Amino acid sequence: MSPLGHLRWVIPEGFIPSESLPGAGRPLISHEAACMINAGDRDARVELMIYFTDREPVGPYRVTVAARRTLHLRFNKLKDPAAVPLDTDYAWVITSDVPIVVQHTRLDSRCSGLALLSTIAFPA
Amino acid sequence: MSPLGHLRWVIPEGFIPSESLPGAGRPLISHEAACMINAGDRDARVELMIYFTDREPVGPYRVTVAARRTLHLRFNKLKDPAAVPLDTDYAWVITSDVPIVVQHTRLDSRCSGLALLSTIAFPA
Amino acid sequence: MSPLGHLRWVIPEGFIPSESLPGAGRPLISHEAACMINAGDRDARVELMIYFTDREPVGPYRVTVAARRTLHLRFNKLKDPAAVPLDTDYAWVITSDVPIVVQHTRLDSRCSGLALLSTIAFPA
Amino acid sequence: MSPLGHLRWVIPEGFIPSESLPGAGRPLISHEAACMINAGDRDARVELMIYFTDREPVGPYRVTVAARRTLHLRFNKLKDPAAVPLDTDYAWVITSDVPIVVQHTRLDSRCSGLALLSTIAFPA
Repeated sequence: MSPLGHLRWVIPEGFIPSESLPGAGRPLISHEAACMINAGDRDARVELMIYFTDREPVGPYRVTVAARRTLHLRFNKLKDPAAVPLDTDYAWVITSDVPIVVQHTRLDSRCSGLALLSTIAFPA
Repeated sequence: MSPLGHLRWVIPEGFIPSESLPGAGRPLISHEAACMINAGDRDARVELMIYFTDREPVGPYRVTVAARRTLHLRFNKLKDPAAVPLDTDYAWVITSDVPIVVQHTRLDSRCSGLALLSTIAFPA
Repeated sequence: MSPLGHLRWVIPEGFIPSESLPGAGRPLISHEAACMINAGDRDARVELMIYFTDREPVGPYRVTVAARRTLHLRFNKLKDPAAVPLDTDYAWVITSDVPIVVQHTRLDSRCSGLALLSTIAFPA
Repeated sequence: MSPLGHLRWVIPEGFIPSESLPGAGRPLISHEAACMINAGDRDARVELMIYFTDREPVGPYRVTVAARRTLHLRFNKLKDPAAVPLDTDYAWVITSDVPIVVQHTRLDSRCSGLALLSTIAFPA
């Protein structure tokens, strides 16, 4: 299949709650993800910049989305150049060297039960 | 009404939880759906490819969305060429031979209560 | 402000649960809404067609969104030409004679607590 | 990075529940937010108009999103020229003098647990 999507994607609404369901394992810990698909035949080199309310952007974070693969990247696990702070408003911009499609999802398990939100990111 | 929509639609964020509310019947079992509308006067032959994190894509899955009809296709029921694995990150691309519109919805009933997410898919 | 938006909007994923929280009043009854804004200076005459899985579309339903007003139209209250069936997959297409913007929201209170989903409709 | 986004954004579906989880602190109080990112190098002067079902629009509300910053603006805190009424259907249009990207999120904690919805706003 030919490459499909865009090279730059934006999400203004980032926030990772520091609390989760008591005893929650990895799947149910409060988290946020950038879900990417690279339907083309060349690996995608992806760079992620994180924007804040009151200081300069941090990044780039670098990941590869292999050809014909998806990557659901949890922000909770980003460490280099810096961990993403919890309980903090942020936003992000993803740049890829080949077309990809990006969707944003948050799972919030601060209270009993789960809450989910998701949207296709904005192709800029 | 004239056909409306696009021929190719993408969702990067697929995931079907294996757990559900105890005793949940079909409506409340954790599931994921591609909801399609074909507002035109010709049946839509639709092909679905599923992408994974660590192996080659699987498909095509084939369904028909009849003229002037909607189809809310649950991924849980796809069997040919292979069932969609649970608790596994995936992504999907839908291709139709006539214009359709596609929306992605997940119902997650792993914990007490429900969580829902939904977004119009990305028209590629 | 000049008119803004599109003349035709599509949502493939309609479903109104028949159950709600015990004792729920109007705000918390399970429902689905097409939320419309008409930012222009002429009233919008809006027609809504509802599509089903296994029978011909029903409509048009007609509403007016006045100039410089919003209307959050609950599908539960549509009666003419026919009520929207509960627990039934459907889809909808909205046509307006002046530009509007449309967003789809569902509140599901079948289980303890609430679940919400929302997306901007697809501008066709 | 060069500016990215649009100058005008629309959300038809505004609603702030007046009730929240008993004892909820700021993060868990029912609220609605317009999340904005200004990835460019010039501050964004942003104006927000709020539309209602049965009266003239109110505004403009004015905020600044600094260069290379995000702002998650809670509607609950808008006061000038008027507070946003609770339990009331509304809609909003944002206009910026430089490109930004806007996402809409609601947190509803009226019942036990949370419900979330989110979507990229409509770029008009």
